[in-house]
Amino acid sequence: MSILIVGSTALDSIKTPKAENPRLLGGSASHAAVAACFFGPVRLVGVVGSDFPKRYLQLYRRHRIDLAGLQILPGKTFHWSGEYEVNMNNRRTLLTELGVFETFTPTLPRAYQTSQFVLLANIAPALQLHVLNQMKRPRFVVADTMDLWLNIALPDLLKLLKRIDGCVLNDSEAHQLTKADNVFAAIRKIHQFGPKYVVIKKGSHGSILSGPRGFFLCPAYPLPRVVDPTGAGDSFVGGMMGYLAAAKGSIDENIRRAMVFGSVTASFCCEGFGLTRTTHVRRAQIDRRVKELEKLTRF
Amino acid sequence: MSILIVGSTALDSIKTPKAENPRLLGGSASHAAVAACFFGPVRLVGVVGSDFPKRYLQLYRRHRIDLAGLQILPGKTFHWSGEYEVNMNNRRTLLTELGVFETFTPTLPRAYQTSQFVLLANIAPALQLHVLNQMKRPRFVVADTMDLWLNIALPDLLKLLKRIDGCVLNDSEAHQLTKADNVFAAIRKIHQFGPKYVVIKKGSHGSILSGPRGFFLCPAYPLPRVVDPTGAGDSFVGGMMGYLAAAKGSIDENIRRAMVFGSVTASFCCEGFGLTRTTHVRRAQIDRRVKELEKLTRF
Repeated sequence: MSILIVGSTALDSIKTPKAENPRLLGGSASHAAVAACFFGPVRLVGVVGSDFPKRYLQLYRRHRIDLAGLQILPGKTFHWSGEYEVNMNNRRTLLTELGVFETFTPTLPRAYQTSQFVLLANIAPALQLHVLNQMKRPRFVVADTMDLWLNIALPDLLKLLKRIDGCVLNDSEAHQLTKADNVFAAIRKIHQFGPKYVVIKKGSHGSILSGPRGFFLCPAYPLPRVVDPTGAGDSFVGGMMGYLAAAKGSIDENIRRAMVFGSVTASFCCEGFGLTRTTHVRRAQIDRRVKELEKLTRF
Repeated sequence: MSILIVGSTALDSIKTPKAENPRLLGGSASHAAVAACFFGPVRLVGVVGSDFPKRYLQLYRRHRIDLAGLQILPGKTFHWSGEYEVNMNNRRTLLTELGVFETFTPTLPRAYQTSQFVLLANIAPALQLHVLNQMKRPRFVVADTMDLWLNIALPDLLKLLKRIDGCVLNDSEAHQLTKADNVFAAIRKIHQFGPKYVVIKKGSHGSILSGPRGFFLCPAYPLPRVVDPTGAGDSFVGGMMGYLAAAKGSIDENIRRAMVFGSVTASFCCEGFGLTRTTHVRRAQIDRRVKELEKLTRF
């Protein structure tokens, strides 16, 4: 089944202690879409400027990503620039140029409105709500977010949480949202905001699902070298939703494996700058790492 | 098979944002011994002063802990006092009174010298070496340590690492020891120091084993409320070694489950101050949580 993904489509300039990479393809929707496309067709909703490199459009298309929902407007593409510290965990934003993103109003092509699986990737919650309002009875809607929206758009975010099936947060965001120091206490509070499924991302420590069938402790694939973690969280949720949209059976039957597939897709993302590694991965490599993770966690 | 445990036997005064508990039974060997005793007989090597409460000796005995190796010397028992922050992760030491520990020289009773399983719980590496020198061909020796010894006794610690089968460190200590930011890179370097088995503790994020059969990602039992994490690491390694000593078959066949049992034992430790919760746990409760963890990690 087709999955609709809305989020940011951007150019990322990423500095790490070892290298500098200007104007890579980035943004939450780009990472999520490329991750999801391993499992089935993807519909992308986003906006780029007239400066958006043609090769990135070709990259989307090569990955079977439907671009009917991608607006190309006069002006500049959203540009983010950030720098990572040696440990690759802490990053600081050097520059944010919103460009055409500043006035972005996602309008869904008619065909998109009946998508069964909807991933509201990280973007202003007002825009996530705007997309959700255009959907016709989707089967499973998941939203990702970031600390910025907790700080400047909390009322919108709370409105959104009431209307989605699942939300994805990293652990520090969960603490910020709930004021609970303990992650399992935080999860309980997040359920009270609305979502039946709560997924907490913990980076290299894996992730936690809380849903109708209880908790699931999802491992992260062991990586001896992280080149660039930008987009790993987006890849995780993109892979998870892509797997779910493609799988037969109920959400509850599939969501654990979906998270593991998301986790593995995210592991590839970390092995290269931007999307450079993920876009060269084949599905068989993902399957292999999932099998490995099964062995690494069995006792 | 009997397991020998050497380490600190202390009185802990623990302050958390919610409570204050003076002079609880503590120390690395106390926590490890109580954890190990769920699985089989334990031989304790340590030292306490004449002020050591009788009820704590009775507590050891009630747990089938052999005290032939526990010296009771004139003077004061080692007393540690610490305070936890709200998030229960950061703690600071308020006071350390070494007492009789200052001149402690562990001398093993003859019967102890042939123990097959040896846990050198957290204590000065010179003392760990001193105990190891008295052992006659033990089957499996594991040492735990702490940041203090990395700072003030690194040469001794490196000497020790050459002579043990396994070492247990938390992630920040692994980084400190190896200067590697990535935990899997750190593990590789620690193997080069000697140990065939490296276990990295990551608190609520679980633990990682690296051994002859590769990695194992060991989960932590989900706890919605942590009362006091003091001794959790000691409980983990104590439970792990206790399980291993009691299990039939090879180390490699058993070590994964051993870690899970250690992890669960540590989860109980966190649910009460000092040893107050662990000492009231029954083996069946441990088995139940291990089964739960199997379900929580299956995909």
